[in-house]
Amino acid sequence: MRTLLLLTVFAALAVRARAAEPRGRDLGIPFDFGSPGRANAITDVPGVEVGHVTLIQGESVRTGVTAVLPRGRGDDGQQPCFAGYYSLNGNGEMTGVAWLEEAGVLEGPVLITNTNAVGVLRDAVIQYAHQRWGEREGWSDALWSLPVVAETWDGSLNDIYGGYVKAEHARQALEAARPGAVAEGAVGGGTGMICYEFKGGIGTASRLLPAPSGGFTVGVLVQANFGIRHQLRIAGVPVGAEIRDGATRTTDTGSIIIVVATDAPLLPHQLKRLARRAALGLARTGSVAGNGSGDLFLAFSTANRRAGEAQGTVPLEMLPNARMGALFEATVGATEEAIVNALVAGRTMTGHKGYTVPGLPHDRVVELLRRHGRLQPASGH
Amino acid sequence: MRTLLLLTVFAALAVRARAAEPRGRDLGIPFDFGSPGRANAITDVPGVEVGHVTLIQGESVRTGVTAVLPRGRGDDGQQPCFAGYYSLNGNGEMTGVAWLEEAGVLEGPVLITNTNAVGVLRDAVIQYAHQRWGEREGWSDALWSLPVVAETWDGSLNDIYGGYVKAEHARQALEAARPGAVAEGAVGGGTGMICYEFKGGIGTASRLLPAPSGGFTVGVLVQANFGIRHQLRIAGVPVGAEIRDGATRTTDTGSIIIVVATDAPLLPHQLKRLARRAALGLARTGSVAGNGSGDLFLAFSTANRRAGEAQGTVPLEMLPNARMGALFEATVGATEEAIVNALVAGRTMTGHKGYTVPGLPHDRVVELLRRHGRLQPASGH
Amino acid sequence: MRTLLLLTVFAALAVRARAAEPRGRDLGIPFDFGSPGRANAITDVPGVEVGHVTLIQGESVRTGVTAVLPRGRGDDGQQPCFAGYYSLNGNGEMTGVAWLEEAGVLEGPVLITNTNAVGVLRDAVIQYAHQRWGEREGWSDALWSLPVVAETWDGSLNDIYGGYVKAEHARQALEAARPGAVAEGAVGGGTGMICYEFKGGIGTASRLLPAPSGGFTVGVLVQANFGIRHQLRIAGVPVGAEIRDGATRTTDTGSIIIVVATDAPLLPHQLKRLARRAALGLARTGSVAGNGSGDLFLAFSTANRRAGEAQGTVPLEMLPNARMGALFEATVGATEEAIVNALVAGRTMTGHKGYTVPGLPHDRVVELLRRHGRLQPASGH
Amino acid sequence: MRTLLLLTVFAALAVRARAAEPRGRDLGIPFDFGSPGRANAITDVPGVEVGHVTLIQGESVRTGVTAVLPRGRGDDGQQPCFAGYYSLNGNGEMTGVAWLEEAGVLEGPVLITNTNAVGVLRDAVIQYAHQRWGEREGWSDALWSLPVVAETWDGSLNDIYGGYVKAEHARQALEAARPGAVAEGAVGGGTGMICYEFKGGIGTASRLLPAPSGGFTVGVLVQANFGIRHQLRIAGVPVGAEIRDGATRTTDTGSIIIVVATDAPLLPHQLKRLARRAALGLARTGSVAGNGSGDLFLAFSTANRRAGEAQGTVPLEMLPNARMGALFEATVGATEEAIVNALVAGRTMTGHKGYTVPGLPHDRVVELLRRHGRLQPASGH
Repeated sequence: MRTLLLLTVFAALAVRARAAEPRGRDLGIPFDFGSPGRANAITDVPGVEVGHVTLIQGESVRTGVTAVLPRGRGDDGQQPCFAGYYSLNGNGEMTGVAWLEEAGVLEGPVLITNTNAVGVLRDAVIQYAHQRWGEREGWSDALWSLPVVAETWDGSLNDIYGGYVKAEHARQALEAARPGAVAEGAVGGGTGMICYEFKGGIGTASRLLPAPSGGFTVGVLVQANFGIRHQLRIAGVPVGAEIRDGATRTTDTGSIIIVVATDAPLLPHQLKRLARRAALGLARTGSVAGNGSGDLFLAFSTANRRAGEAQGTVPLEMLPNARMGALFEATVGATEEAIVNALVAGRTMTGHKGYTVPGLPHDRVVELLRRHGRLQPASGH
Repeated sequence: MRTLLLLTVFAALAVRARAAEPRGRDLGIPFDFGSPGRANAITDVPGVEVGHVTLIQGESVRTGVTAVLPRGRGDDGQQPCFAGYYSLNGNGEMTGVAWLEEAGVLEGPVLITNTNAVGVLRDAVIQYAHQRWGEREGWSDALWSLPVVAETWDGSLNDIYGGYVKAEHARQALEAARPGAVAEGAVGGGTGMICYEFKGGIGTASRLLPAPSGGFTVGVLVQANFGIRHQLRIAGVPVGAEIRDGATRTTDTGSIIIVVATDAPLLPHQLKRLARRAALGLARTGSVAGNGSGDLFLAFSTANRRAGEAQGTVPLEMLPNARMGALFEATVGATEEAIVNALVAGRTMTGHKGYTVPGLPHDRVVELLRRHGRLQPASGH
Repeated sequence: MRTLLLLTVFAALAVRARAAEPRGRDLGIPFDFGSPGRANAITDVPGVEVGHVTLIQGESVRTGVTAVLPRGRGDDGQQPCFAGYYSLNGNGEMTGVAWLEEAGVLEGPVLITNTNAVGVLRDAVIQYAHQRWGEREGWSDALWSLPVVAETWDGSLNDIYGGYVKAEHARQALEAARPGAVAEGAVGGGTGMICYEFKGGIGTASRLLPAPSGGFTVGVLVQANFGIRHQLRIAGVPVGAEIRDGATRTTDTGSIIIVVATDAPLLPHQLKRLARRAALGLARTGSVAGNGSGDLFLAFSTANRRAGEAQGTVPLEMLPNARMGALFEATVGATEEAIVNALVAGRTMTGHKGYTVPGLPHDRVVELLRRHGRLQPASGH
Repeated sequence: MRTLLLLTVFAALAVRARAAEPRGRDLGIPFDFGSPGRANAITDVPGVEVGHVTLIQGESVRTGVTAVLPRGRGDDGQQPCFAGYYSLNGNGEMTGVAWLEEAGVLEGPVLITNTNAVGVLRDAVIQYAHQRWGEREGWSDALWSLPVVAETWDGSLNDIYGGYVKAEHARQALEAARPGAVAEGAVGGGTGMICYEFKGGIGTASRLLPAPSGGFTVGVLVQANFGIRHQLRIAGVPVGAEIRDGATRTTDTGSIIIVVATDAPLLPHQLKRLARRAALGLARTGSVAGNGSGDLFLAFSTANRRAGEAQGTVPLEMLPNARMGALFEATVGATEEAIVNALVAGRTMTGHKGYTVPGLPHDRVVELLRRHGRLQPASGH
């Protein structure tokens, strides 16, 4: 217990430390489809907050929890958001989606962790809401009783059967949530993840639409744990075919969870359209969504704050389908960039039973991009 | 051509004549889940109009077209409606649903005909809109370019390969559309249809919700062409097990198209929920949705007249999910009643190659209901 | 801990005791669509076993776990089954279905419990398999890493936030699994459930197809916790409209989990067709699948034992779609009967905070059926 | 009529002439994920045949029909294939998919044409089969009564409301079907199509899996009519950003139909998985599946020749999910290449009202690939 608490503090410090780490754009990697928001993160969507609990201990503990709170960690978090879901390849778990699909709303946060810890966190979220709001007037426990918890498998670097993720980590991740810069790489649920046989984990990016397209923001957060090396493309350059060191896999056994947030006033069926576009951003990095991959995507909108009301008739706003093109491009672009950011943030890690995964070698990537005429002057993001 | 024109006139007269025919409630059949609207028809939903073209000629022509116009046959018909779709058993055709599902809107009318005539009507609807509005400012031909046309198979009573349904019948059905009472049984697309081995065809019914439930109307129209006799239940009474005359089928080769209309302000994903409930109304009449049955359902809402706008952001109204229970009951009840109405309106028909289908024997049904303690005093509907 | 163990023993005794309790057919309730198998239970499908853990303690503990093991509790349980899934109304949780839908297989058992205990059991199933087979040659932990655990909400009779369901109960339910007669009503996951405002819970039934239809068995098990009183129909008779005692609900806040098993050699897409038919059986009891109801259905086939192989190409057998009609009828009939059996097995229960739910009054139901000419001579099942 | 006949002959000659035209690999464009089959076409899958009817006349007729026959134009064409469907963005029409999804089979051919001609061809396919096999013992007209006909919109280059596609063209396309090389670009249904604001149309490619992966073939045929210029990537190189000539669009109003064929023994749910991968191939060329795009994909398997039998139980073979990775890569690779081939085959065309679309400038593309270090030595395909 004590150790884990220390670890959490360590993780919190890591957030700040990492702010200085280079991201994709810092290396000069070009990305399409518009410009990012201030933090180039899912938190650029006003209200969205992200919290990590990172569990690194001894040789065998390399795991954690990442929480995405659509309306922040305050009481606003009670208000559902319109949402949509898409399973590109269902070799994974995301609880709560039967209701999300039926009702068109996401009620509560999205937690992401390792495969074996989905249940403990799911039950813990129910208890958390009950303890926090159970006695409040107007609150219905039904609201958070079907929580959304997703996973990817970290059993190579982490002792996944060790049961290190506990109910208390749900609360910690929810309470650690903050707006602004988001730590990437081996943090939170992404701690022990592997992507294209490089160190993977959490990545994020955003796009701020120009005013004629509505001025909306699209933010993406991924927990990236998928891919075979030879598939990897960065900015269209066949990086995975060139950098073969440590590439041994023949099958794709990982997964990727993608969370898309926006403040554009989209209805549930339109958010399903956004979720489906996450697949196209994923494809641009080279993935074919392998059989062993749980590629589950969720999109929500923070607009329409009354989406979850139960009385009367509710006034809403809708962005017409005909105006969604810019949001599609933003989703594809931010998804591609979030995945690359997860790779760029990766550092070589050794874990359970001495298993080692190399970090993406920045210098070689930069050299490959230069050779293919794709290196950009580094931007401030 | 000339003959068919005469036939159409005949059909129009038939509409009036049939208004005096008994319907389910007139026989004393009880139905659940509230009270019907004024016409006990899909047209009780304000704006909805229905048009039939009935083609009966010689021994072999027993077919036609039924058109449901969500916003009537005027220029209002240009305005899309939010809509949802559900395939209970997809052994049938309903064109246009890929876009209906993607966009969440029904653009234009719903036509129902025989299996082999879906194509000619589909293309004809595109031409109709182009000729009518193609030159008008603000009109986009894209709006009606993916028409919804559905079918059931009338090849037992009708020479279905004879090609008697022509492009002109699309226009005729659209222009014949009217509010108010809807002819049932062997009219329009339902002309040659068979249901539980009795004469089937078009049926309709509605429910008017009480004010505390919002005062909304739900209307249902079916083209009923499905079922094996022994399955038939009316008001829970096993009518099909009792009336075995002429029952010879061992497999279910028919289909049913169900159109659900409402003025409740539902979003697309909520209308999909209504469409799914049509299956529950169908089940109450005994069907198990046989392998050979094309059981395709569509629900639309006439509220939110700006649902199809392409500019800016669109203000909408939404009925909360939590208030949909009464609409679910209304949909189930009106669907069950519409199917029974189609059966009650059926009269013995002889058609192609002398094939004969018996009409539901009203007296025996009444007697069975009486015997099972289910006969009601006949209502005015 | 000790107490719970005692409770479990009590539950096991209850299984035997209950075998003498009357079921639907014993009361003379008629059911359609063929004859049941030997136990009139899901376990009539060879290989299928069911285990209950029933937790009843003091005033507030009324809950438990029911496990359905498609291939029994032996090592055969490692072999996946082809399976399909359908959400009629997704206000509920069934974990593991993303992969079930993607791969077309059910890997491992189905557990059913209360809403707040899904997570603990889900994680426990992963650990159970790992501990049992983790070291065996040929076993892959991936096989049981996305367990299927479903729920309905027992928070009226049970202190659902009390956390009484523990990881150990997953193992206990799995190891308690047996072929043959299945205890119904307030047992296992059904302990605290309510159906049409009568005591609900676990129910089961089966159909044995005649040889010309293939001689296959269809078995259904439900955890019934749904419905408003006035909706209830038994054998088509409006029982809920007649027996109004204790009926106070205006909204449908329950749920029903339906598991359909068969030994017919169906492919995954065909099993999805079976799952969809469960909705039609449910409708025959009066439900409209209310907004608050989590109506999630799963169908699996025990045929094609090599369905889960990972090497070479796998020889399979398929029953043609054209021959599925009898299976559709069997599924609809057994689902309707299983729900009625859950009601018939219900006894008045008082639980958390003194909340009381009445059992279905057998005598009044029998009298109503007699009055409506629907009472059958009681059968041996 | 006479003119059209002449046009068809012209088209047939065009097929041969075009065989000498360069394709993507001839220009030195590199493609991933294995090697193509002999013709680098969908027809590399044994049994698959393709027929085009090309209608080019005067200034305004630029349209046609392409037919894909899964089991060739002989009587084998009666045998259904297992199949799956996926709608990436449903702004389009593909008839027949309700049954394809329900039954898991494709019965008959796939026709592709312009938006306004779907209906006439659909009805014509029904008549064609009836006339050809209607009297044969063992034939059921039900088999081809829900034909698959898809479309993209050619109204910029073609007088789409002119009604130039006739019923007879269905027959002509079916009878023109051949194995071997497939004409690409402005032929068949692709005649008037536009892709990334270059001339688009029909494209095809294939992958032959190595023996350890089963030695199966995957073939893809596309009718490409989508995209905004700036999105276009070829082999990862941002070609669309560099070649801006004639690029004026701000919204994506096109569509793409993708047909994936394989001889791998896949079940229906597995073919749906393949269909979903087509989206990933599309994404590699830069598309984000714009709102106006009808991106509808279908995959079928020619294995399991008894997939459509109606009697007994049917022996089948299945490739395990765990072995599908190579097929996923093949589908993604062949889809990307087929789209590029459609572009490479495009030649500048002027059509209706003088509208002109430029062909992809081969020399500039080659220069761009060279500049980005991506030009390959041209291969023989």
